[in-house]
Amino acid sequence: MLNKIDHIGVAVKSLEESTKFYKMMGVEPYHFEEVESQKVKVAFIKVGDTNIELLEPTSDDSPVAKFIEKKGEGIHHICYDVASVPEALSTLKDEGLRLIDEEPKPGAHGKMVAFVHPKSVCGVLTELSQDAH
Amino acid sequence: MLNKIDHIGVAVKSLEESTKFYKMMGVEPYHFEEVESQKVKVAFIKVGDTNIELLEPTSDDSPVAKFIEKKGEGIHHICYDVASVPEALSTLKDEGLRLIDEEPKPGAHGKMVAFVHPKSVCGVLTELSQDAH
Repeated sequence: MLNKIDHIGVAVKSLEESTKFYKMMGVEPYHFEEVESQKVKVAFIKVGDTNIELLEPTSDDSPVAKFIEKKGEGIHHICYDVASVPEALSTLKDEGLRLIDEEPKPGAHGKMVAFVHPKSVCGVLTELSQDAH
Repeated sequence: MLNKIDHIGVAVKSLEESTKFYKMMGVEPYHFEEVESQKVKVAFIKVGDTNIELLEPTSDDSPVAKFIEKKGEGIHHICYDVASVPEALSTLKDEGLRLIDEEPKPGAHGKMVAFVHPKSVCGVLTELSQDAH
């Protein structure tokens, strides 16, 4: 059911600063995007069949800004590519897992996404993502 | 230089508890190992071309036990597969990054590994890994 890791989200104060390590290692970001609903600017870096998604808050009340304030910069979530987000949510709900989103919602790249609560995945905020058809 | 993400290390209290989510999603761990030098038991779960590495401390003075005590369960590190760990370390050192390991050391699966300090990678503890020859 988990096809691959779609991306790993990293909360950072500055996209410019945080892309330096990847550039030193020969990898340039290939896509930049602003996601207004989440109040973040995003840079995508492709590594193998997955991506590092760097998230810089554009406002102090962005969820990512609050994460950085509480925990500091660092890994924010893992996103898995699945064939069907509704089917995966239904399975997890039946098993008693705590969901943040009961229904898929629109995410970056026009995908449908939903979050599972970190309490149910050993502290890891987990996103499920499905390609747009 | 970064070929792929070799694995994502997750600090957990119990391998049994933490494998449940992956089993619900149809993925069974394919390898278990005890790494005595790090005082952890490890379960590997393959997702796409990378792995989730679940780390359960076997002792209260394990670095992973200390991580959980301080931050709770959650993502501990990202490991990148590179062609040459010494070459990558040399590049990063020349650029002024803070290294935890100046030289590669033996890791799980008989690989050679080295860690870069999270302060130099926006809060992400970063491991570099090279296949054994």
